[in-house]
Order: sequence, then C-alpha cells, then structure tokens
Amino acid sequence: MKLNCDLGESFGAWRMAVDEQIMVHIDQANVACGYHAGDPVAISDAIALAKKHNVSIGAHPAYPDLQGFGRRSMTMPERELITCLHYQISALRGMTAIQNVTLDYVKPHGALYNDLMRDADLRRNVMRAVAQAGEGELVLMMQAHPDFETHLNEAAEFDLTLEFEAFADRRYEDDGYLMSRRKHGAVLSEAEALTQATGLMDDGYITTAGGRQLTLKVDTLCVHGDSEDAIAMAQQLRLALTKRKLSATS
Amino acid sequence: MKLNCDLGESFGAWRMAVDEQIMVHIDQANVACGYHAGDPVAISDAIALAKKHNVSIGAHPAYPDLQGFGRRSMTMPERELITCLHYQISALRGMTAIQNVTLDYVKPHGALYNDLMRDADLRRNVMRAVAQAGEGELVLMMQAHPDFETHLNEAAEFDLTLEFEAFADRRYEDDGYLMSRRKHGAVLSEAEALTQATGLMDDGYITTAGGRQLTLKVDTLCVHGDSEDAIAMAQQLRLALTKRKLSATS
Amino acid sequence: MKLNCDLGESFGAWRMAVDEQIMVHIDQANVACGYHAGDPVAISDAIALAKKHNVSIGAHPAYPDLQGFGRRSMTMPERELITCLHYQISALRGMTAIQNVTLDYVKPHGALYNDLMRDADLRRNVMRAVAQAGEGELVLMMQAHPDFETHLNEAAEFDLTLEFEAFADRRYEDDGYLMSRRKHGAVLSEAEALTQATGLMDDGYITTAGGRQLTLKVDTLCVHGDSEDAIAMAQQLRLALTKRKLSATS
Amino acid sequence: MKLNCDLGESFGAWRMAVDEQIMVHIDQANVACGYHAGDPVAISDAIALAKKHNVSIGAHPAYPDLQGFGRRSMTMPERELITCLHYQISALRGMTAIQNVTLDYVKPHGALYNDLMRDADLRRNVMRAVAQAGEGELVLMMQAHPDFETHLNEAAEFDLTLEFEAFADRRYEDDGYLMSRRKHGAVLSEAEALTQATGLMDDGYITTAGGRQLTLKVDTLCVHGDSEDAIAMAQQLRLALTKRKLSATS
Repeated sequence: MKLNCDLGESFGAWRMAVDEQIMVHIDQANVACGYHAGDPVAISDAIALAKKHNVSIGAHPAYPDLQGFGRRSMTMPERELITCLHYQISALRGMTAIQNVTLDYVKPHGALYNDLMRDADLRRNVMRAVAQAGEGELVLMMQAHPDFETHLNEAAEFDLTLEFEAFADRRYEDDGYLMSRRKHGAVLSEAEALTQATGLMDDGYITTAGGRQLTLKVDTLCVHGDSEDAIAMAQQLRLALTKRKLSATS
Repeated sequence: MKLNCDLGESFGAWRMAVDEQIMVHIDQANVACGYHAGDPVAISDAIALAKKHNVSIGAHPAYPDLQGFGRRSMTMPERELITCLHYQISALRGMTAIQNVTLDYVKPHGALYNDLMRDADLRRNVMRAVAQAGEGELVLMMQAHPDFETHLNEAAEFDLTLEFEAFADRRYEDDGYLMSRRKHGAVLSEAEALTQATGLMDDGYITTAGGRQLTLKVDTLCVHGDSEDAIAMAQQLRLALTKRKLSATS
Repeated sequence: MKLNCDLGESFGAWRMAVDEQIMVHIDQANVACGYHAGDPVAISDAIALAKKHNVSIGAHPAYPDLQGFGRRSMTMPERELITCLHYQISALRGMTAIQNVTLDYVKPHGALYNDLMRDADLRRNVMRAVAQAGEGELVLMMQAHPDFETHLNEAAEFDLTLEFEAFADRRYEDDGYLMSRRKHGAVLSEAEALTQATGLMDDGYITTAGGRQLTLKVDTLCVHGDSEDAIAMAQQLRLALTKRKLSATS
Repeated sequence: MKLNCDLGESFGAWRMAVDEQIMVHIDQANVACGYHAGDPVAISDAIALAKKHNVSIGAHPAYPDLQGFGRRSMTMPERELITCLHYQISALRGMTAIQNVTLDYVKPHGALYNDLMRDADLRRNVMRAVAQAGEGELVLMMQAHPDFETHLNEAAEFDLTLEFEAFADRRYEDDGYLMSRRKHGAVLSEAEALTQATGLMDDGYITTAGGRQLTLKVDTLCVHGDSEDAIAMAQQLRLALTKRKLSATS
C-alpha cells in the first residue's frame, strides 16, 4: 500500500502548502494541472520537489473551475470533457519531461473524482481520455469501491491499469461511497483514522457508518500536507506501512 | 519560403474561422495554446485539420490574457514567463502526440511576439523556454529583422534553430520593425502585399515606409484565413511560390 | 407581449452579433454580465445600443463558466451562488447607471435558467439574490410554465415581480418544459415558430410534442439576432404583435 | 491622517487573511473587485466585516490578471481600461449597496497603482473612469508624491477629489517614488517604519534613500493585516495617531 498527496495547488499569489515535510512520507504526488489550481510556477515547483524526494508524479486534472477549486460538479459534453483532460494531462506530462522525470498516473480531482464513481458514461470517458493521453504509460487512480471488478472490466477495454485509493480519515457509507462532508461524522478523528487505515492494511476491510465490514481492494491511501496534524498523521501511516513491510520480509 | 497561418483560436461558444479552405494553401499551422485563445476542443480540431492536410504544426503560446486576446503587453518575472511557456508548449505537444503527429515549432503570439523583438532579456527567456520544452526538437519562429545575426547567435547558445517570418501585408519601418497598426498605411492593399511578397521572393528585400531597401532573411510568410479576401491572397502567394519552385527546378 | 433578445455576448477579440438591426424589433435587451460572456467593452456597447433604441435593459447573469458559455450545469453552494448573482447584477446595474439608464430586470442565462425550473431551492436562491440586488426595482424573467402560480407564490415571499418568457422556435414537451436540443424536432421551422407564436398571442396556448394544448401565461418572447433569418423572424413577430395591438385599440 | 488596508483578497479555496484583528485599527478597507483577487464570497465577507467595524469601504480595482495578482503591468487600450474600471467599481458599489453601506473611494491596485504615477494618460483615464462610475460620490486614492499639485489639477478637470496615500514601511527614492522592491533596503524595518510614519505625522516629510527631506501631502497610511507583526505595526500607528489627535484637541 502506498501513500499519495495532492500538491501544486497554489495559484498566483495564493499559496497552498507544498511542504517539503510531507514529501518524505509519501510515494505519490498528485500535481494540479491549472484548471482548478496550479499555475505554471506551482506545477514546476511541485515536480521539482517530487523529483528531489524520488516521489512518483501523477496529473491531477479537474473540471475547468478555478473559482470553485474544482469542487463544483459540471455537465460537460463528451468531447469537451475528453479534450479538457487531454489538455491538462499533456501539460503535466510535458512539464515533467522538461525536468527529466516521467508522469506515472492520473488522479481526477474533486467533483470529477466523485462524479465518475456514480456515472458510468463519465467514468468511461475519463478512462478513454487517460488511455489516449498516456499512450499506454499512464495508470488511472480512482476510488476504491466494492464494485472494483466492474471498474477493472471497464478499464480493460481501454488497456488501462487502475490503482485504487482509500481514505484513512473519511467515513464510508454502507454502499461503499464516502459519507458526504456535509454529514456529521464524515471526517474521522486522528485515532479513528489510524484505526481505519491499519484495519485496511491488516484485514482488508473498513467498518462503515452502518457497522458493516466493507472489503476494499486498496493500492494507495490519501494523505494531506496542509497542517502539522496532517503531516503527523502521514508520518504515522508511513510508520505503520514500514513496520508491516519489515515483518512481511523478515 | 513557406506560408504559415494562426489557427485554433476559437474559445467555447466563440468561433474564429478555422477554415479548411486555408489549409490547402499553407505549410505551417500555428495553433493557439489556451492562454490567449484555444479551448481544448478548438486545439484538437486544429490539429486534426492540419494532420489531414499534412500541414506542419506549431505551438502559438501567449501571455495569459484571454480578455485581451494576448495583445496586451505584460510584465512577467522571468520564472513566471518561462514556466508559462513550458506549460503551453507542453499542452500542445501532448495534444499533437495524442493524434500521432509531431509538434515542429513554436511561434510566440501577439504582444509577446512583438515585445521580444525589442527586449533582449525577454527574447533570451523565450529561447531558453522553447529549447527546454522542445528537447532539441522545436524550432522557434520569430520576426525577420535586419539584426537576424544577433538573433542567430543568441539562439546558438541554446542550441535552438530559428525560422524567420515576414509579413506580406504589413508595411515596414526603416529600422526593420513593423509599422504600428495605429499608423495610417500600416496595412498594405492586396496589390501592394503581393508586390511586397514577390519582391521578397525574387530580390530578398522589402521597400520600407521611408523608401529604403530592407534586406531580410525570410523563411516563412504569415497569411490569414479569416475572410474570402485573405484566402484569395494566400492562394496567390502559394501560386507565386509554386511558380518559382518550378522554374528553379526546371 | 414583448420581445427580448440576448446581447453583449462578445468577449475580447471574439465578437457575437450585437446587431443594430435586431434593436429596432425588440423591447428588452438581456445583457451578459462577464461570467459566461460579456467583457466590459461589450457590456458598455450593448447598453449604449439599447439606450439609443429605447430598449429596456436586463442583466443576464450565469454560472461562472466562460469556456462553456454558461451552458454547463454547476453545483454551487447557496452562498456562492447568491453572491455570484449579486456581483454580476451589481456590475450591470452600475454600468447602466454610468450611461444614465436603469436596469429593469434579470434573466438568468443558459444552464442556470434551465436548472432553476426543476430545482425549487435553486429557484428560491435566485429569487432571493435578485430581490436583494434589486432593492425592489428589479423584475425576474423566467420561463413560462404551467406551474406559474407556484412560481408567483414563491416570488411573493421576496416581494419580487416575475415576467414569464416563452420561445417561439422551441418545441414544448407535454409537461411544459422545453424539449432538449439533443432531441430531433426540438427546434421549430420558421413557419412552425410563427404559428406557435401567433397561437400564443391569440389563444394563449401552445401545442406540445404530444399534441396537448398547453396554456401558458406569457409576458415576453425570446428572439435571436445572430443571423439574417433570426432578424427576419423577429421582424415578423414584431409585426404580428403590432397588428394585434392596433386591432385591440381600434 | 487615516489608516487603510487591502482586504477581500481571497479567491475560491485560497484564503488571504481578512482578519478581524486588523479591522479595529483601520479607517478604510480597500476591497478587491474580482480582477486580481476577490471572488463574490470574499467581497461580501470583507464588506460585512468593514460594516461591522464602521470602516469606510473603497473599491480596489486592478488589471484583469488573476494569475499575476494584478502585479503585472499591462497595456490596455483606453476604452478597455475605462470600461474595465467601470465594471469593477460597479460590482463593488452594488455589493456594498446590498449590505446598506456606501462605497466611498477607489484605490487602484498593484501594477495599475504604480503605472499611473508615471503615465499621465493612464492617470487621466483612471480619473475619468472613477469620476464617471462614482457620479460625484467617489474619491480617488493615489500615491502621495511631490507632484501632487499636478495631480490635483488633473483631478479638478473631472471634479474628482483625491486622497493621498503614503507607506510607512517602504523607502522612498529622491524623486518621490517608492524604491523598487527588488532593491536592497526597499522595505523598512519595524523601527524604521515607525520613525518614518511619526516623522510624517509630526513634520510632514520623509527622509529619502539619498538623505533628502521629501515633503509629502498625506491623507492616509497603508497598513497590512497578513501577519502578527503587521497587525502590531498597525496598532502602533493607530496609537501614534490617537495620541496626536488627543494632544491636538487638548
């Protein structure tokens, strides 16, 4: 299991933490592509930092929505959506090539990330766009969900590899989706998050809001780098992963 | 001598002529990159059209200025400018790769195109950015000027190949710069434009506003595709070039 | 019954027809506010033209979506939506005041216009925003629908006057909504449009796709100014209205 | 002498400090208008906060440059500049009216603020735009400079009242302009800033980089609210002003 974090989300004079502190704990950096965040300087900085720390780099494309930080669902006709992903992924891919590093994967951002879980047409369009833009070299990171076999089958049509992401600090509904942030209890305490994450590592399931054991195929956990607490949590998750790796190999 | 034209300059619901009619007359398509014009659909369309007509494709990056169509000079700190060019060129380069065509060159747009002629620091930053983004594969198209040897020397530092562009339909000042559009007589009549272009083809010089003979090293002429008259002019220039090529080889 | 038309929809170098020809036929000009179209010059031009022709001016606010021309539905949290309408209406209101004319009404644009017909919360937020921004002086123009009494009741809570708009050239579904443009037959022929419009004028109802007679309370008809045909249609509708006015007063 | 501060400079998910702490120390809040910063929610919040603390509100319009935070000089044709100011001021004026407060003044932002000091045409266009948008009710705040009589004469042509702003924490060149931030020593230490400000209060002059005594007519001092130190400085300046007011009235 890997750890990933959203980075490069500054824009112009507005800074969002791209802290070197988080880099030492993560395996994958999801870099904003300019549509929800990420001006060219911020993108370039994030790539340089990831390269320095030998962290894998992914493109983090979004709906074109700077004012809403990509958190507003938008209805985009198929061709507009696909080319808008081509554009963002291409920008990131070229920016990494300039620094002599590769772009390894794509993780959709915000509302796009959520919308595609419930809309099969949208999901297939995202898959198609990533497959086309990646020329066989880009993995698509999406949310881990009990329906993962459906998702794998869909991806196979596009010769696309998937990587599934889970959240340590978010509560899951019984149907396998994340509880909406607007609901009470949607965000877990630090202790709960650690329990949820280590449960996933050891047993492969999460306990949902309704008390169900939800088995999830998980390749990577999402962490945050925007506060001291977030970095402390990332550090603990890294420690937990390292311990398990060591005992597995001993 | 080649013919080039700006294309892909639609944005959202706003269409700017990307007429198939112009494609049959030109050698090089300068495709907008999203900063002054060119949403992803427009970019994708322009690339497809150029590919269909076997026209060479260039990136046409600009200052970030949608409202002013890249025609407003902007002061950008060095790193902001360079990464903003990296971003735009990368987006175009990836978008061409998706359609299995190559990106061959970069032609700066609008105010950026003009500003770099008079500002050596800016010019060197543009050269550096193109060299970095192109990994040795991109040519920089800039304005033909009597100081072209200076420009070639500057480009050599970056291992960058230059291509020089002249304008059939614009009057030149004695110092080799274009007469400002705000001045009377800045834009030539059709007949004058044809005379200026064929003069360049045959004799290698232009007659300036002050009556001087201005010798210019020219690789490509700029044509327009936004009206019937513009397309007729492009057709005539193509004819003139073809005739000269035929008589040269006969 | 009045005639209204969307205007001021140019942006930067991209022109959308703001033809003086249409102005002589209409009563109301819906002027873009900068979020889906309408840079400050275009807004200023549209206001000046409306003033010259003594045409009533309305603000035509939209979701913040330049790339999609406001045609993409967006989910905006309540406060973001309301302040985004405040901003756009305020900009228009001040721009009209500078030219010594009044802003008379607000007509939501594109996806926002459509979305509020089916989403009561959104509709009430739009009503609230218009009432707040208008200080009692702005009318809200929305789509004529059989449920108009519900809409009037909702508006009454905000002391807001409504004006109902119908479309001459769009086919209506049996439930009173417009047929989606993606469906065959959604846009009427010129002859059909004229029949639909005069039917509304004389009998007060429209014949739906399913053949039902749909009674609609209609204050204004939407016309277009972007082609010769559109202007000819506006002229015919103006003629039809004038005739009926004359025979009513004779 | 008054104290003013730039506020409302958040955008979407990016927050810039609009701290209540600074509000208790200032007389005037310069609120961003959406072109360099300030989404509608941020604008609305800043107005509400200013109203709560009985602080005068000004519009803080800028070149259209979100990515550069309005710090990039731009060449805008006269009409584009004037209408772009009309638009921004109108938006702010309406947004204050919605909260039942008045807009009192306009302070140009960033590069526009600086550029107009050296470009008389630009300065007159800004004056014209403010006069037109304000209908006689808006004051223009600009930089205090030894040439202030020229500025007053220019403003008189537009029946425009000026208010002159000085900087406590910036070093002045001998010619009365601010030393460029790129130069060493451009920003004063806290102690120096306090000395410069109290010198202005008591003696009416500033000591320049070259050691000259520069007499300045100053109505308001610029303070910042983005750090603990900035707020402490604002508090000290408020204290210094209050003391002088008390001794003047005793």
